[in-house]
Amino acid sequence: MTKASAESSVFFNEKGYEKFNHFIEQESFTKIFVLVDTNTHVHCLAPFLQQLETNIPLEILEIDAGEENKTLDTCSSLWDTLSHLGGDRKSLLVNLGGGVVTDLGGFVAAAFKRGIACVHFPTTLLAMVDAALGGKNGVNLGALKNQVGVIKKPEMVIADTSFLGTLPAAEMRSGLAEMLKHGLIADEDYWNRLNSLKELGITDLEDLIKESVVIKEKIVKEDPLEKGLRKSLNFGHTLGHAIESFFLVDPEKQKLLHGEAVAAGMVLAAFLSSKLEGFPIHKRDEIRNSIHSMYGRITISIEDQEKIIDLLKYDKKNEGGKINFVLLRKIGEPVIDREVPNSLILEAFRFYLALPENE
Amino acid sequence: MTKASAESSVFFNEKGYEKFNHFIEQESFTKIFVLVDTNTHVHCLAPFLQQLETNIPLEILEIDAGEENKTLDTCSSLWDTLSHLGGDRKSLLVNLGGGVVTDLGGFVAAAFKRGIACVHFPTTLLAMVDAALGGKNGVNLGALKNQVGVIKKPEMVIADTSFLGTLPAAEMRSGLAEMLKHGLIADEDYWNRLNSLKELGITDLEDLIKESVVIKEKIVKEDPLEKGLRKSLNFGHTLGHAIESFFLVDPEKQKLLHGEAVAAGMVLAAFLSSKLEGFPIHKRDEIRNSIHSMYGRITISIEDQEKIIDLLKYDKKNEGGKINFVLLRKIGEPVIDREVPNSLILEAFRFYLALPENE
Repeated sequence: MTKASAESSVFFNEKGYEKFNHFIEQESFTKIFVLVDTNTHVHCLAPFLQQLETNIPLEILEIDAGEENKTLDTCSSLWDTLSHLGGDRKSLLVNLGGGVVTDLGGFVAAAFKRGIACVHFPTTLLAMVDAALGGKNGVNLGALKNQVGVIKKPEMVIADTSFLGTLPAAEMRSGLAEMLKHGLIADEDYWNRLNSLKELGITDLEDLIKESVVIKEKIVKEDPLEKGLRKSLNFGHTLGHAIESFFLVDPEKQKLLHGEAVAAGMVLAAFLSSKLEGFPIHKRDEIRNSIHSMYGRITISIEDQEKIIDLLKYDKKNEGGKINFVLLRKIGEPVIDREVPNSLILEAFRFYLALPENE
Repeated sequence: MTKASAESSVFFNEKGYEKFNHFIEQESFTKIFVLVDTNTHVHCLAPFLQQLETNIPLEILEIDAGEENKTLDTCSSLWDTLSHLGGDRKSLLVNLGGGVVTDLGGFVAAAFKRGIACVHFPTTLLAMVDAALGGKNGVNLGALKNQVGVIKKPEMVIADTSFLGTLPAAEMRSGLAEMLKHGLIADEDYWNRLNSLKELGITDLEDLIKESVVIKEKIVKEDPLEKGLRKSLNFGHTLGHAIESFFLVDPEKQKLLHGEAVAAGMVLAAFLSSKLEGFPIHKRDEIRNSIHSMYGRITISIEDQEKIIDLLKYDKKNEGGKINFVLLRKIGEPVIDREVPNSLILEAFRFYLALPENE
């Protein structure tokens, strides 16, 4: 309910806390609710509170960590709690966590009493370079990702990169996938630099994170309601989401992080791009090799491939029953709203799963 | 997701259907979902379908009638159904019903896949003059009204006044309360004409309905996000909502319609206005007599009054624990954000409950 700025509203580290403290002083909120999950409660809440300079009453709200809790039921119990703790239209919700917390908390704020202010403090690499940016929020409906939510930008996003120090390597890789995506759809030089990274240290990463933020914000600003250009951010996500959904609901399957599924989706999309858009073969192979070396190969049987293809019909980008893919003409040159025959998707899975010498 | 117009987007009767048919032809929706409740399914769906000119595939969604179904659970099952029936971002949701259907359906559309288009066809007087206008939508959290929702205008609102012919007298009275409110906050002449109405016939009403739409739209347009002026539409609603909530959760109590509770709330607010804002005593009495003659007197014990006052703390207009009332200086001159001591509210209940000769 406070003023939206056309400028970037993403700030880092000390400067970020400064901006945030100034903001809450100015807006005279009646109460600050801080949403954490079981992980960020342990690892991030104390350092966050230490930086906070305010006398406004504060309440901590906790949810269980994990994508499986990104549900309407979780929202419902948070709305109840907000009501009973005296949350009002001049309350602020701070979302301190990864993509689940910022997605779900963003929706909780957007719909509580028809909208209260919120600020995201992304604590994972994925949330810093993607989930917390651009105002998309939402929750899952069963296996279907982000089916319920709205687009509403938070008042600001504060990225404290020191939080990344507590993040498991798999979570770092998951976030890196969205950075690789930014390179592939917008900036070949950025893609190359990410590929030459020796390891995911925080110091190397800081500037690369800032570049990712700039790429995503530029795209969102040009097309906030996702009529065209913004769809390119879904590169790798059409099949990536379906793979993620498929693994999420099957308790027998390995646990797959969002970025791991998207990384696989990008290899598949690179193959489809080479078949349908003339995307160069050697770049296609470079993408596969690079992603396989970072993420390994997910085992997906033919039977599972068909179930994954079946899930595509729920993709949010679809219109009139058509499944819309984002493909590439070259690195940095995406094309949107492309249709792909299922037979070619099965071929793409073969390409993804093949060992280099088998081709 | 379609263009918003600065012009009025409320249309009546034949002209309304014409505009609607033209709109769906232009927008090339992939599917039209029509949300009805058990009442409008019987009384309104057939006449609506008869006026529809389109080849776009159509699905009917039904919910149980009644305020007690205006819940997140109902939304959740509608979102599931929309997903499984192939709803996509180019689907249209038509909300054919009273305030419960337009409030809940508006929220379902606003949050499905981050927002699909919706059109309201209000079928009750209350929905035509109030609920369907202005873009507020939402559902209740237990006894707390409209705690979850957003502000998002439908693409258009089509009022077919012939639907009012099937409406019970109590429902007509309920809608009339919001029209009376429009008179009290904005136009004394309109208030006087409503008071001189002999009966609630459709022909007399049609022009009066249109005037109410104009009053509400003018206020919403000047203050869409309810920073100031729009709050005046809450006249009678602070205590009205609390009374309504209180009766809603107690199965022993009579069933109270929204407008009936608001009518009582307006008598209470008139009393408070005379105590705190110099509102003329004879006008205060005129409001009570007029409302008592149309709505009768709701029985509210002292014990219940205290429970109702206790519910005020959940009112959405509150900020920082302060309960904000809308009062009147004179008819047509509202003042917002007024605080009222509880002792005066108890006095107001005595005024509301007193028989004229007892004063």
